[in-house]
Amino acid sequence: MSAGGEEDGGLPEAEAKQRLYLYDTTLRDGQQTQGVQFSTAEKRQIALALDALGVDYVEGGWPGANPTDSEFFAQAPALTARLAAFGMTKRAGRSAENDDVLAAVLDAGTPVVCLVGKTHEFHVTTALGVMLEENLEAIRASVAHVVAKGREALLDAEHFFDGYRANPSYALDCLRAAVGEGARWVVLCDTNGGTMPADIGRITAEVIAAGIPGDHLGIHCHDDTGNAVAGSLAAIDAGARQVQGTLNGLGERCGNANLTTLIPTLLLKQPYATRFDTGVTREALKGITRTSRMLDDILNRVPRRAAAYVGASAFAHKAGLHASAILKDPTTYEHIEPGLVGNARVIPMSNQAGQSNLRARLTAAGLTVAPGDPRLGRILEVVKAREDQGYAYDSAQASFELIARAELGQLPQFFEVKRYRVTVERRRSGAGMMTLSEAVVVVLIDGKRVLSVSESLDEAGTDRGPVNALAKALAKDLGPWQSIIDDMHLVDFKVRITQGGTEAVTRVIIDSEDSQGRRWSTVGVSPNIVDASFEALLDAINWKLIRDTGKDET
Amino acid sequence: MSAGGEEDGGLPEAEAKQRLYLYDTTLRDGQQTQGVQFSTAEKRQIALALDALGVDYVEGGWPGANPTDSEFFAQAPALTARLAAFGMTKRAGRSAENDDVLAAVLDAGTPVVCLVGKTHEFHVTTALGVMLEENLEAIRASVAHVVAKGREALLDAEHFFDGYRANPSYALDCLRAAVGEGARWVVLCDTNGGTMPADIGRITAEVIAAGIPGDHLGIHCHDDTGNAVAGSLAAIDAGARQVQGTLNGLGERCGNANLTTLIPTLLLKQPYATRFDTGVTREALKGITRTSRMLDDILNRVPRRAAAYVGASAFAHKAGLHASAILKDPTTYEHIEPGLVGNARVIPMSNQAGQSNLRARLTAAGLTVAPGDPRLGRILEVVKAREDQGYAYDSAQASFELIARAELGQLPQFFEVKRYRVTVERRRSGAGMMTLSEAVVVVLIDGKRVLSVSESLDEAGTDRGPVNALAKALAKDLGPWQSIIDDMHLVDFKVRITQGGTEAVTRVIIDSEDSQGRRWSTVGVSPNIVDASFEALLDAINWKLIRDTGKDET
Repeated sequence: MSAGGEEDGGLPEAEAKQRLYLYDTTLRDGQQTQGVQFSTAEKRQIALALDALGVDYVEGGWPGANPTDSEFFAQAPALTARLAAFGMTKRAGRSAENDDVLAAVLDAGTPVVCLVGKTHEFHVTTALGVMLEENLEAIRASVAHVVAKGREALLDAEHFFDGYRANPSYALDCLRAAVGEGARWVVLCDTNGGTMPADIGRITAEVIAAGIPGDHLGIHCHDDTGNAVAGSLAAIDAGARQVQGTLNGLGERCGNANLTTLIPTLLLKQPYATRFDTGVTREALKGITRTSRMLDDILNRVPRRAAAYVGASAFAHKAGLHASAILKDPTTYEHIEPGLVGNARVIPMSNQAGQSNLRARLTAAGLTVAPGDPRLGRILEVVKAREDQGYAYDSAQASFELIARAELGQLPQFFEVKRYRVTVERRRSGAGMMTLSEAVVVVLIDGKRVLSVSESLDEAGTDRGPVNALAKALAKDLGPWQSIIDDMHLVDFKVRITQGGTEAVTRVIIDSEDSQGRRWSTVGVSPNIVDASFEALLDAINWKLIRDTGKDET
Repeated sequence: MSAGGEEDGGLPEAEAKQRLYLYDTTLRDGQQTQGVQFSTAEKRQIALALDALGVDYVEGGWPGANPTDSEFFAQAPALTARLAAFGMTKRAGRSAENDDVLAAVLDAGTPVVCLVGKTHEFHVTTALGVMLEENLEAIRASVAHVVAKGREALLDAEHFFDGYRANPSYALDCLRAAVGEGARWVVLCDTNGGTMPADIGRITAEVIAAGIPGDHLGIHCHDDTGNAVAGSLAAIDAGARQVQGTLNGLGERCGNANLTTLIPTLLLKQPYATRFDTGVTREALKGITRTSRMLDDILNRVPRRAAAYVGASAFAHKAGLHASAILKDPTTYEHIEPGLVGNARVIPMSNQAGQSNLRARLTAAGLTVAPGDPRLGRILEVVKAREDQGYAYDSAQASFELIARAELGQLPQFFEVKRYRVTVERRRSGAGMMTLSEAVVVVLIDGKRVLSVSESLDEAGTDRGPVNALAKALAKDLGPWQSIIDDMHLVDFKVRITQGGTEAVTRVIIDSEDSQGRRWSTVGVSPNIVDASFEALLDAINWKLIRDTGKDET
């Protein structure tokens, strides 16, 4: 923990820490991301992950606005975090008691209710079309109504920073209206995401100077200028004590402040680590990389490799000079120890990294090669040539190992595929159309030709496609190796087109798993997607055979 | 330009603007990104795009460090921007004149040379293993040597902020050594990316107070805490007048400061727009979205939708309340006008957006439907149900149009596919193995059954895979429609697995183009990749037939 330790020495230990509250809105504002629509089950899963992380508030959605949100609140999971329902202040021309939209929010029965209210005079008169005083009254009456129902009330002050610049006294009056009626928090929202961090810091300080206490003040930033995290920190520096954000920075347009970035900074970096307590423990912080990847899994998104703290490249050292210094002392090119956030150091190979990286990677695969061995240069050449064709070995470590073994003369041949044929048919079946895939594989094992055939139907009779049929046929009869192969299964299948258009070349990466909990990745490349898949499947089988027949011991 | 105009009013117009210099290192530090390796041709293409944008400096690489960088400088394109070669200060124990690494950098013949030098005592003594005074002498001698050769000299002050915290007087001495020998710029590098923006601002101000002039001071940030852009702005606020970064924030680990974010901010946002001149004009700024996408194309990366300013979602308004306000006045939820950066407003459909968005999108497809028409609700239901299965209509506008036409009773049937069969074979051929794909398609046109067969070999005899064979067979004989279909071709083919593992469901998106320059996107979804592709191909053909037979006129 030397890198993290360095961060602990900034301020005297004895100084009393202040409490900083984390408010997550992944399930509400995060759902405004283009292409994102959570199911109720997914909302539950994310809420539980947020709770395990230790955030203080989980905003679950807007009850009444859509069926999924209402269903989530009806079946809300038991959380340590305080569950919040989102809504808006009462509409003009009716009382808070008689506003059905507000009633639906309160009916969700959450301990916390967060209402968005206007604080920018332009929006009050233009978007709402009401008088400024009417809007103040809507804030007062709505907050009072929530408080009277025994709930913790928050006001999301929409467009606060733009509003404050246009008419500071009105924007402040809106905040005072909420605090005066007992709102636990007023949250300064940079709704359009255009305010610079320096302005957020200055205006937050002015709000506190105008009498709104910092421990009643939250910050809600958007990333339209790439400054959502910095804006949040600027507000905290100025005295705000609640910060709102989302996992992986989901949210409308460019997204909200990214909590997977903010939380590690608040726990590990100065002055925050010494100055603040949050609900997230050092132990829970180790789960944040996993939580981030889980959300991408739910959304079927490719995790962003360059994401701060949690990205697969966040601690990847490609430059040759960096990589060699890292081997001496990781603090030379790492600002924190990757294990603190559950991430890991990566030293990828490339023409910039050279043989010392290659040797480290071979050692990880159980292959010992002396420095200066000429085979190292040959392996690098083969890897480089294949990367030019579209192969990617940064993640497909098992395929990399097989290439290295071939060059080192340590690649046993268990069997040989003589030929295969895969057929996809679509034709009429009863009233509708159906598709069916079939694969025939001919394998030579111990001098014997073995023919296998499989079709692609799953237990429900659904066609799972040509690669499924091929995988089943390939694994169907491998003679003496059959029991070993029966123990592995495909857990993920990723396809990427590495050249567009009619010249498309396909890269397939397959993740496999066995009963011992081993998980390995292999890669295949071809203009023919079936053949690219075949190559990756073959690598996966060979890697497993090498492991389980003890051929990996040199 | 009302949204952008709002930003122009902050400071008095008459105040003299200061010059702020932009230094791009996409071709050098950007190449440290995991998985990125530019070819010489790609480097030229990127350099020309940067020049068209108007950056002041283009850093092309490290001559001598790898063959591609040396080749690029040997064939460097003619640029208005100043071309910089990167290297490091001379090594201990030899003179600047006799250092072969430094000589290779100067041999590239660029007008600008940027040398990285150590300024952190820990790195001097640990990583380099030399005395502190030796390192100062290396900086002095190297800069003097570059200046003596008539080049503009820069010092990249590696680990400056960490070094300044450890030993401020030594870190400052390193800067003074460079400036004293005539370096045009000393660049404060936050090499490990761990320094908070507030600290970057404070330390930059202290450096200027210690006598290093701001117009000789640059800033180089990394994004390890998600603050690279904010850190750069903090240094500019404090007085630095050169900023380094990369397109799309490429770079080692989490990347460098993102120039596609910083440049729009410096030109459009206050106080920067009024305070500074850069080499980028308002007109050139309109090309920045295209430049960002071009870089992703070169790298075969999926553009980041949520990227500030240039992302496809940057001006997408999903929330129903936002979308309806935007229709009244875009400044309600946009901090700038999207056209200023060459981007566009998007109002996607979703259960949150409702019928007014849908009608706007139908109108764009030439389909007029009256408000309140019950078919609008049915179309929304079909779209929602299909999105649940994995379809995505945000980009596949042509497939969306076909769905809407089906519900509106405006979908003509030109032909019917009765069945198809696709075969992929891999078998021995001469000395090696070969693959071959073949497709048979049976189509009913005007009551007549037409059989077509195609194989997947291109002109060079390479198998282009089963989808290629199917596309060719499908388009081979469509009777009266043949001349229309002959005018279209497939320009891009994208595959995505929307559920992982053995239950994988495949989404295929196909982009087609015709001789009139029309480009349209269609989508297909199936567990069977061939069938998903077939569906998207069929949509593409039908959309073209509707257009060219005049069936789109209602």
